Amino acid sequence: MTNDNARTRLDAQMDFLLEADRLKSVSRATRLADGSRYENSAEHSWHIALFALTLSEHAPAQVDRGKVIAMLLLHDLVEIDAGDAPVFGNHDTAAVEAAEARAADRIFGLLPEDQRQHFRAIWEEFEANQTPEARFAKSLDRFAPPNLNIANGGGSWVDYDVEWATFENNVGRKIQAGAPVLWQWIMPRARKVLDRLALKRQDR
Amino acid sequence: MTNDNARTRLDAQMDFLLEADRLKSVSRATRLADGSRYENSAEHSWHIALFALTLSEHAPAQVDRGKVIAMLLLHDLVEIDAGDAPVFGNHDTAAVEAAEARAADRIFGLLPEDQRQHFRAIWEEFEANQTPEARFAKSLDRFAPPNLNIANGGGSWVDYDVEWATFENNVGRKIQAGAPVLWQWIMPRARKVLDRLALKRQDR
Ligand SMILES: [Ca+2]
Repeated sequence: MTNDNARTRLDAQMDFLLEADRLKSVSRATRLADGSRYENSAEHSWHIALFALTLSEHAPAQVDRGKVIAMLLLHDLVEIDAGDAPVFGNHDTAAVEAAEARAADRIFGLLPEDQRQHFRAIWEEFEANQTPEARFAKSLDRFAPPNLNIANGGGSWVDYDVEWATFENNVGRKIQAGAPVLWQWIMPRARKVLDRLALKRQDR
Repeated sequence: MTNDNARTRLDAQMDFLLEADRLKSVSRATRLADGSRYENSAEHSWHIALFALTLSEHAPAQVDRGKVIAMLLLHDLVEIDAGDAPVFGNHDTAAVEAAEARAADRIFGLLPEDQRQHFRAIWEEFEANQTPEARFAKSLDRFAPPNLNIANGGGSWVDYDVEWATFENNVGRKIQAGAPVLWQWIMPRARKVLDRLALKRQDR
C-alpha cells in the first residue's frame, strides 16, 4: 500500500470514528444505577462490552469473546440516525428496522469498502440473532438494563408501568435464550422489585 | 463447578459490573465533538475501543486486537475512585499513581480471585506501556481527545491555554511511540487549530 492510499484509507476511518461520537448524545430509557440521569447509548455500549469481558464463561456454548465484544461495540451505532427504541415502548417494528438499515448504509458506508463489509456483517449477525455469539451478545444487551432498574428502584419499569408478565416476555425470554444462567440470576431480583411496584400501583 | 459455586462467582462478578457503572459519572476535560458537554470516562472508553477495532491495522507491530480492546475497556475504571487526571493539568504523579493503585485494589478486588488477577494484570500491562498492545492502546487514548478538540474548535486546548510545544510533548510523543501513522495524520490538523488559538491569545 502506498503512503497516499494509506492516508486516504485513514481519512475514511476517521470520518467514521468522528461520526460515531454522536452516539454519546443518544439517550436511552434506562437510568444510571444511582438514578441521577438517563444513560446514553455510547456508555451503555461500553458497559455491556465489559459485561461480555467479565461474563463470557456463562455463555451456554463456547463463544468467541472478541466477536461478542465487537458486536456490542458496534450494535447501537445505527441509533445515531434511528434513535433508541425503548424495549417497553410501542414501535412499528418494520419502520424501526427500515430506519436502522438506512442508518447502517450511511454510517458503515463512511468506512473503506472492506471494513464497511466487515462491520456491517458483524452488525447483521447480531441483529439476526442466530449464532452463539449473537445470542449471547443480545442477552447481555437485555440483561444490563434490569440490573440498573433494580439498583435505582425501578427506573424504566416505573416510567412504562411494566408488569412481571411483560418483563418476562419482552426481556426475560431473550436473556434466557442466550444466557440461561443470567436469567436464573436476575429473575428473583427483578421479580421482587416488580412485585413491589405492582403493590404501589394498587395503592394509587 | 456446582450450582452454588456458580452463583457465588456470578454474585461477585455482578458486584464488579454494577460498581463499574459509576465510571459514567466521571467527567473528563474533553468535550464531545459537537462541544455540547464534557465527555465522561465510560463513553470515552467505548469510543477508543471502537478506535482500536477500526484502526489496529495502523499499529506499527502486529498487535492482539482483542487484548488492546480489553485494555481500553478496563483502563479508566480506577478513575471511579481516583478521578480523571487531565493531560494538561498539574498533578503530583506519585500521588495519582498511588490513588490509582488503591482504586485497582478495591475495584478489581470485587471480582473472583482468578479474574481479579487477570484484569489487574491487563491494567498493569497497559500502565507499564512496554508491550506493543499497551503502546498502541496508550496511543489511542492520547489520539482520540485532540480529534474532539479539533472538531469542537479547541476544547480543552482553550481551557488549559495549550501551546503547540506542550501538545507535542505531552500528547504527540505518546501517540508517536505507539502509532506513528496516527501522529503523522493528526499533527498538521492539530497544528492548524493550535496556531489559530495562539494568534487569538496574542490579540487578547
Ligand atoms: Ca484517563
